[in-house]
Amino acid sequence: MAQQQQHVVRLEKRPVGKPVPGQDLVYQEAPMPSEDDLKDGEVLIKNVYLTLDPAMRGWMMDRKSYMPPVELGAIMRGSSVGQVMASCDSSLQEGDWVLCRIEVGWAEYGIAEASKVTKIDISDDIPASVHLGALGTTGLTAYFGLIEIGQPKEGDTIVVSAAAGATGSMVCQIAKHVFGCRVIGIAGGSEKCQWLIDDLGVDEAIDYKQDEGEDFARALRKACPDGVDIYFDNVGGWILNEVFKQINFKARIVVCGAISGYNNTTPAPGPSAYTQLIITSSRMEGFIVSNYAKRFKEAKEDLTGWLKEGKITYKEDVIHGLSKAPRAFLKLFGEDGGNRGRIIIDIHAEDQD
Amino acid sequence: MAQQQQHVVRLEKRPVGKPVPGQDLVYQEAPMPSEDDLKDGEVLIKNVYLTLDPAMRGWMMDRKSYMPPVELGAIMRGSSVGQVMASCDSSLQEGDWVLCRIEVGWAEYGIAEASKVTKIDISDDIPASVHLGALGTTGLTAYFGLIEIGQPKEGDTIVVSAAAGATGSMVCQIAKHVFGCRVIGIAGGSEKCQWLIDDLGVDEAIDYKQDEGEDFARALRKACPDGVDIYFDNVGGWILNEVFKQINFKARIVVCGAISGYNNTTPAPGPSAYTQLIITSSRMEGFIVSNYAKRFKEAKEDLTGWLKEGKITYKEDVIHGLSKAPRAFLKLFGEDGGNRGRIIIDIHAEDQD
Ligand SMILES: NC(=O)c1ccc[n+]([C@@H]2O[C@H](COP(=O)([O-])OP(=O)(O)OC[C@H]3O[C@@H](n4cnc5c(N)ncnc54)[C@H](OP(=O)(O)O)[C@@H]3O)[C@@H](O)[C@H]2O)c1
Ligand SMILES: NC(=O)c1ccc[n+]([C@@H]2O[C@H](COP(=O)([O-])OP(=O)(O)OC[C@H]3O[C@@H](n4cnc5c(N)ncnc54)[C@H](OP(=O)(O)O)[C@@H]3O)[C@@H](O)[C@H]2O)c1
Repeated sequence: MAQQQQHVVRLEKRPVGKPVPGQDLVYQEAPMPSEDDLKDGEVLIKNVYLTLDPAMRGWMMDRKSYMPPVELGAIMRGSSVGQVMASCDSSLQEGDWVLCRIEVGWAEYGIAEASKVTKIDISDDIPASVHLGALGTTGLTAYFGLIEIGQPKEGDTIVVSAAAGATGSMVCQIAKHVFGCRVIGIAGGSEKCQWLIDDLGVDEAIDYKQDEGEDFARALRKACPDGVDIYFDNVGGWILNEVFKQINFKARIVVCGAISGYNNTTPAPGPSAYTQLIITSSRMEGFIVSNYAKRFKEAKEDLTGWLKEGKITYKEDVIHGLSKAPRAFLKLFGEDGGNRGRIIIDIHAEDQD
Repeated sequence: MAQQQQHVVRLEKRPVGKPVPGQDLVYQEAPMPSEDDLKDGEVLIKNVYLTLDPAMRGWMMDRKSYMPPVELGAIMRGSSVGQVMASCDSSLQEGDWVLCRIEVGWAEYGIAEASKVTKIDISDDIPASVHLGALGTTGLTAYFGLIEIGQPKEGDTIVVSAAAGATGSMVCQIAKHVFGCRVIGIAGGSEKCQWLIDDLGVDEAIDYKQDEGEDFARALRKACPDGVDIYFDNVGGWILNEVFKQINFKARIVVCGAISGYNNTTPAPGPSAYTQLIITSSRMEGFIVSNYAKRFKEAKEDLTGWLKEGKITYKEDVIHGLSKAPRAFLKLFGEDGGNRGRIIIDIHAEDQD
């Protein structure tokens, strides 16, 4: 009998600038793993939802980081949720839903060690894809970055960049509705800004594509008459530099990401105004969400509670079919109108549009 | 009787670039304050030693900072030690030595509120000028910056810039001889580097004027085979950027100063490699020594103990006469061969060279 085929996306070349679909990230056929391949302790998984994340851009590069790079020719790494099709481990059985942090990646099917994946409960309230967003890395990143590094107090003024993005929108809501901060969101375009105000309840939104340079500084000053206590930064670049100029005594700058520079081929200039850290006795700190893995359980309980109480909501940008993933990845960097919420690839839904 | 005259240095113009002696900082005659001018609670002080400090460059600028700028035409601000000539306060009497944080400044004589100055004990072990250096702002800056922000542990690798300077040399010694760190000092010129190794006992010294760019990166990698746990930064600029590239997980960057940019007329580029903070989950934090004023007493006790035990030593670059202060200030920025240790102006010693 001929070997059955599935589809995967491989990293075929290390991108220079934005990853080119079909050249750097290539959708192609591959042998389909089967029940017969399972070893003791392993499970066969049908991947259902894959999420795309700016951090993936870093994994495509051949450099030392908190994780080794994806090897050339390998299936692209990524977080997904899927269902167990067959199990050689007593902890999981057919039909169980599991969260795969990196075990299956950009593929329709895969085999994983049962101990490496996490069984999840799904319900009408909390569908499977939410474990890739509000209850997944996104929610956890917002939670630990804001709480552990940002240390919000009631009445603090917090500025959030990529505020309408997956992580940023969680940060805005937790800061506003759980901690009682004054929240200023920065996003590209008036539509996203309106959404921040109407749906998330932020106090002010600044459209960085509209207001640049001096205009941005003025808009920020107006939105933060008492200065900035916390800056949750997802983007870096000139926005970071401008925010630096308005930080308060003992401010906290949470360095979550620097997406504005991820596709640069030469390093972007750093924030020359970082010397504000001295004048204001402030702190700037980076983190990787996995540092807090031991506390994910408690964090998920909090996040689930806030979801159910309606303190936080989430938005998904669902893409139908794995074949569209390489192109959808570019939305994170503003292409095709940019992403609206967490990008979720509905892997097997090729024919839905 | 004609009013007696003294000498002072005034800030006559806001410098653009390096402060020009005779134009920006002007040595001139001024009325000499007398006993008859004293109000209740005040003392008349003969200033004996004045120290010069890169932070003064910031005070000359008209911008919001942790202290208001020096006004144009005013006596330049600075720390000094002097002797009480006459007192209208019971806490101080003629002949007492006092530390004046900013009360007298660049002047031969001045009047201060007794409650604002600090009485100091001097001895053969601890001459008066040491209260401007090892036991003054310098020692305190090194102490709190290193201990509170750097959080050194035995065996940590610490890199110190402007390591042969006043603050840097204290940091090197405390890190090495009190905390047992591996210490790498960065300084300009082979003579300073040799001094760091021979007299201060650092493990390695790097001459940043000799080794730039790739050479510097290589020298740093060789000196820090296990990466950098703490960077105590006095200079900013390209050195900061290069050190960033070699920091370890959970590294601490103590932002004490950024002297390489103090005379810039346009902002120098910031450290583009600051994104290492994310990858390594590291922290970068600024401070102003006066934040810790409540703990100065305990810190001075520790510093005094370490001085007496020989764990730390200090070096002074003594300049004879207040008239030479405007020119001497430029040594901090490398002119006239640069400063060797803390610059101390022996105010009344005009004729000694
Ligand atoms: N430290 C960690 O452990 C950790 C974990 C997860 C994610 N992250 C970081 O968190 C950040 C957000 O990730 P996410 O997954 O939540 O993605 P996301 O925010 O949903 O998507 C990225 C958003 O960034 C904005 N953006 C793109 N290019 C920009 C530019 N040049 N200037 C300003 N904004 C730009 C876009 O929003 P606009 O349309 O508003 O421009 C885009 O929607 C990323 O930097 C990521 O690397 C860090
Ligand atoms: N945060 C606080 O509370 C606080 C308090 C006091 C001082 N400080 C800061 O601490 C730093 C040191 O002050 P200090 O009083 O101890 O002065 P210092 O180190 O005795 O003198 C400054 C030294 O900086 C070095 N330098 C000058 N320009 C440089 C450049 N372009 N690149 C690299 N190095 C350069 C020179 O050493 P080389 O000959 O080796 O180049 C010079 O000797 C300053 O940045 C100051 O602002 C901060």
